[in-house]
Amino acid sequence: MSRFLNSKYRELEAYTPGEQPTDMKYIKLNTNESPYPPSQRVLDAVNSAEVAKLNLYSDPTCKELKSAVAELFGKRSENIFLSNGSDDILNFSFMAFCEGSKRAVRFPEISYGFYSVYAELHGVDYTAVPLNEDFSINVEDYLTNDATLVIANPNAPTGLCLSLDEVERIVAANPDNLVLIDEAYVDFGGESARDLTDKYDNLLVVSTFSKSRSLAGARLGFAIANEAIISDLEKIKYSTNPYNINRLTLLAGEAAIADNDYYMDNCKEIIRTREYTTEALRSMGFYCTDSKANFIFAKSDEIGGEELYLALKSRGILVRHFTKEKIKDFNRITVGTREQMDALLAATAEILKEKRK
Amino acid sequence: MSRFLNSKYRELEAYTPGEQPTDMKYIKLNTNESPYPPSQRVLDAVNSAEVAKLNLYSDPTCKELKSAVAELFGKRSENIFLSNGSDDILNFSFMAFCEGSKRAVRFPEISYGFYSVYAELHGVDYTAVPLNEDFSINVEDYLTNDATLVIANPNAPTGLCLSLDEVERIVAANPDNLVLIDEAYVDFGGESARDLTDKYDNLLVVSTFSKSRSLAGARLGFAIANEAIISDLEKIKYSTNPYNINRLTLLAGEAAIADNDYYMDNCKEIIRTREYTTEALRSMGFYCTDSKANFIFAKSDEIGGEELYLALKSRGILVRHFTKEKIKDFNRITVGTREQMDALLAATAEILKEKRK
Repeated sequence: MSRFLNSKYRELEAYTPGEQPTDMKYIKLNTNESPYPPSQRVLDAVNSAEVAKLNLYSDPTCKELKSAVAELFGKRSENIFLSNGSDDILNFSFMAFCEGSKRAVRFPEISYGFYSVYAELHGVDYTAVPLNEDFSINVEDYLTNDATLVIANPNAPTGLCLSLDEVERIVAANPDNLVLIDEAYVDFGGESARDLTDKYDNLLVVSTFSKSRSLAGARLGFAIANEAIISDLEKIKYSTNPYNINRLTLLAGEAAIADNDYYMDNCKEIIRTREYTTEALRSMGFYCTDSKANFIFAKSDEIGGEELYLALKSRGILVRHFTKEKIKDFNRITVGTREQMDALLAATAEILKEKRK
Repeated sequence: MSRFLNSKYRELEAYTPGEQPTDMKYIKLNTNESPYPPSQRVLDAVNSAEVAKLNLYSDPTCKELKSAVAELFGKRSENIFLSNGSDDILNFSFMAFCEGSKRAVRFPEISYGFYSVYAELHGVDYTAVPLNEDFSINVEDYLTNDATLVIANPNAPTGLCLSLDEVERIVAANPDNLVLIDEAYVDFGGESARDLTDKYDNLLVVSTFSKSRSLAGARLGFAIANEAIISDLEKIKYSTNPYNINRLTLLAGEAAIADNDYYMDNCKEIIRTREYTTEALRSMGFYCTDSKANFIFAKSDEIGGEELYLALKSRGILVRHFTKEKIKDFNRITVGTREQMDALLAATAEILKEKRK
């Protein structure tokens, strides 16, 4: 820390991304990436003729991509915000729609670890609302408080969903509070709230091309809301880094939209692999939540969460372990290909067998 | 504006990027892009095998690129910060190293328009220090105040430089204030202060791959400072968007470093074209500052700044006009290729001729 650092940030604890060790080649099941590459259209769109134009700035209005996203979801361009990954959009949203103690924020205690980081970064009072015993979100907890609400649906790392009716109940009960639904994982079995943005002016739906659209490494997030909310996000973007999406990512995003069926088919395959793996883990005695995301949240009474994580790592398989007390017995396992999951299952069986000796 | 927007941002005026009209094909001399494409190594590095890996996150530590930048400038990786464009780094720096009225910021009144936007965005008290009559920076204005200092060198849109001795005088006179030198344009004739970071722990040098390294559309900025300052910037990055540089940009950046000679040769050509164009404009009666950047800052007594800008635009040539009172007679003209500048000169001669009729 330098002696010049703003006192507000001296105690700040930054987010810890999933590890990316380079000491050996791992089966990476720890950052919820898609195991499938971008589609052929993406490969075709990001070609050397386009790389040769990198001397020119990207379009800060993202006109073409906005229009493609709007068309895919039956919205108008004015309802779409695009930024450099959905983390960027979440950050802007905490800046724009929360305010110290005047407009606090509530989110589930077990959820995306970045929410509390954003709240602390921007000096926003926050309440981390405990989940039910089974890790589900209690809708009642979000109906009567005067605060901005941030809910991941499906939630992470639990994978559990609220139904669309439950989301609407929360949105309708909070006409004077902004409700942000983080749908990073929605394409793996959740119900999107995006069409509720036509009806409710207090709803902001945030999503990403990182998971279901195989573009984690391109950095592209999108949000859907009414025009006034979108214009607030644009104002923050134009006050920080107007060209924040690079040229090649804009092209990759457009191509991915054009190849939507490819990605939705991949999602179906990932769902099948998730169900297959969940069943296999359960038959080994694991407790797994009913995940609707591209990861499995699992624990075993026979082995601690950290112990299993380390044993898998030593066998070349990376999963994500969180040290937070309430979930320290669990691991979050990204759903990869069938072959990757078979390797995970074999390694897990081996680890349990050794443990039982 | 939505009814949910944080009251701090209600009056905020965002930055206005250079226009990107699409009604016709323009000679674009308005956003200080390089007229030269990225080098062959960049074209080779960003290939379809790499595009096929976009399903995987980028390396948030930017290990390879940090090491390449460090080696090029004779520093250690710990002295290098990388982010999604230098705007991103400036934004993080205003967050990290300024603080309300406790640590105000001073910058030249005529300079990069984003400095005041960042100050307002983050609620930092700021003083926009007037320039001398000839647009030069008065070093004395930065020697005795207790504030973070932000100075673009060369300055924009004037193109004027402080010497390295003048920069060191400012840095040495402010041991307890952070001094940020924004060197976006340094490769076109300025003297970099980067080696002073070995000696002074209060100096942060910010630069970009957008101008001299032909990667405006890839979004890549870098900063050089002592380790403590860099770790503060990393903390802000890891608290907002850890993966903020995408995979392809990391590769493009590494390849650009490997092809450094190509870019430095381009800079020499741009300098020659700048001198050629400046001389031609002066012979037409223009006043041009002694620019050491990849743009020319010029005015004529025969035609107003806005009038010339509009007349050029109607002839398919875009230059940048600012409405700020003190510089409204000027235009900032990016130095393009010799052919582009000949077109600019011919159009300007024509406009003046018609005006004289």
